[in-house]
Amino acid sequence: MDSFTATARRMPALRSEIADHPERYRILTGERPTGRLHLGHYVGTISERVRLQDAGVETFVIVADYQVITDRDSVGDIADNVFNAVLDYLAAGLDPAGTTIFTHSAVPALNQLIIPFLSLVTEAELHRNPTVKAEAAASGRALSGLLLTYPVHQAADILFCRGNLVPVGKDNLPHVEITRTIARRFNERYGPVFPEPEALLTETPELPGLDGRKMSKSYGNTIGLGMTADETAAAIRRARTDSERTITYDPEGRPGVSGLLATAAVCLDRSPADVAAELGDQGSGALKALTTEAVNEFLREHRERRSELTAADAASVIRTGNARAAEIAQATLREVRDAMGMIY
Amino acid sequence: MDSFTATARRMPALRSEIADHPERYRILTGERPTGRLHLGHYVGTISERVRLQDAGVETFVIVADYQVITDRDSVGDIADNVFNAVLDYLAAGLDPAGTTIFTHSAVPALNQLIIPFLSLVTEAELHRNPTVKAEAAASGRALSGLLLTYPVHQAADILFCRGNLVPVGKDNLPHVEITRTIARRFNERYGPVFPEPEALLTETPELPGLDGRKMSKSYGNTIGLGMTADETAAAIRRARTDSERTITYDPEGRPGVSGLLATAAVCLDRSPADVAAELGDQGSGALKALTTEAVNEFLREHRERRSELTAADAASVIRTGNARAAEIAQATLREVRDAMGMIY
Repeated sequence: MDSFTATARRMPALRSEIADHPERYRILTGERPTGRLHLGHYVGTISERVRLQDAGVETFVIVADYQVITDRDSVGDIADNVFNAVLDYLAAGLDPAGTTIFTHSAVPALNQLIIPFLSLVTEAELHRNPTVKAEAAASGRALSGLLLTYPVHQAADILFCRGNLVPVGKDNLPHVEITRTIARRFNERYGPVFPEPEALLTETPELPGLDGRKMSKSYGNTIGLGMTADETAAAIRRARTDSERTITYDPEGRPGVSGLLATAAVCLDRSPADVAAELGDQGSGALKALTTEAVNEFLREHRERRSELTAADAASVIRTGNARAAEIAQATLREVRDAMGMIY
Repeated sequence: MDSFTATARRMPALRSEIADHPERYRILTGERPTGRLHLGHYVGTISERVRLQDAGVETFVIVADYQVITDRDSVGDIADNVFNAVLDYLAAGLDPAGTTIFTHSAVPALNQLIIPFLSLVTEAELHRNPTVKAEAAASGRALSGLLLTYPVHQAADILFCRGNLVPVGKDNLPHVEITRTIARRFNERYGPVFPEPEALLTETPELPGLDGRKMSKSYGNTIGLGMTADETAAAIRRARTDSERTITYDPEGRPGVSGLLATAAVCLDRSPADVAAELGDQGSGALKALTTEAVNEFLREHRERRSELTAADAASVIRTGNARAAEIAQATLREVRDAMGMIY
């Protein structure tokens, strides 16, 4: 049985344990602030995060600013991306009173864990990581030391707060596995310090972009959470469909139409085929109108809450979160140093 | 012209600039505390360090405890090794009033520099580093992530305090070169933050062990700085020589005799051949007596000063040094975050 199958089989029991004893779990999750957050993030991960938080699981959200440079030479408009991410987290319902939202670059004691962790994995193991392979191929550049060691950095992100639950899609399962390996090897060598975190496979299917391709800022096919209703309408109006009047859900043959259908469906909590059947032969114009209406209604409350927040609110949340993350990281690092005999 | 030749040619001018303007230089140097310090360390690096400090160059000495695991699975008796190293530094004349002696594991802000630095080198560049190659071959194990990225960690050690001068032997020149590369690439990408440090090639020839082989704790051929005079005499008595009465300096043909001659010579500030000529046909017994006397006299004052120091003195020096290193590292890290736009 491969590890994905094994993990998937474990999910019902794990979800039931989380529901019964949320206090036993601590989640580490987050994003690299490479751009503005969009609808795909919202339905894919952010709303799951809010559900887990609201179910009583202690939640840590890392804004992985430092890791932006893992696959690119420029950090872009990093401060703007960070502030906007935090505004979206808050508007989506993450509550900084209990949930720790912090920026990676501000927690040196977390980053220091990378050194002992690097000693616990071989270069060959790092090369086997599928994300490293895929990102190295996608970047079209020489493999940097940072990208090669990215799984170890993620292990530090998870283990600094002794996260024992990591919501991931199938693609990121290997990161959780290398984190488990690192935790186990550390504990074997130096004594029990870290939990071996479990993956919580996210069930939301990946939402395609407005053109049916993978949602990506670089394709211009995303709906930003911070867009206005008018900007949303304009983005959907620009989406390329076809002249066939009858709307059908056919991701291969009609990517544009199907991308819009998938978008509308996720906002309406219906299936894309169901939405297509309702539209019948009303054509792309009606599809676009329906999608616009569905997205704007779906995000209305989020955007209302978001409009009431300022950069100062985000800055304040980051300050508080960074202080809390630093305190926890320092406590963990003290235990690590103690286990390694490096207390003088 | 290769880089060693170029560096070697630069040395007379560099030494003269240091003598004229010691205040322009800041040295980063240190050891991994893998065992007790011995005569080889003393004549090879520690006395040079003291000379530079006394000439007015600001000096940082890193006790690279965290890096002990770069090529081994166990940290050994790390606290004992650290305390003893610091006692030897102090006895040798390093002055904690002006010189910062600190342990690597206690300065998270230094270690955090590793992340942006890792992004500035490729895996291929890391593989080309001769020390990584040699240590990987010597360790006989799969290459760990830590050993592969070791040159980047050393760059962080040097650049955290903006060290601009690094005393090295020929073998470690590539570490200084990759540090220069990282500093230059960081500055080009994010703005001027780091100096490009220069190598200061140490001129002391490598002292062989008592058996003529490379001095190494694992060969049992070293004279520990912390040994008593009697322990020194016993170690020299155990050294294997030969039955030829006439003492000659012949490192290839008579490694044992020549190891003792080299040891005596460095302590007497004479040449091994000169010492051999003095002994003539007096045989190994006389060579051992002369060597014992020379070593014990050479280290007498060091050992006297050392015997007056306690572990509490070492602990106090480490505390002060760590606080100072942490303050400097945090200031550097603030500038790095600022240059990278990660101030929120």
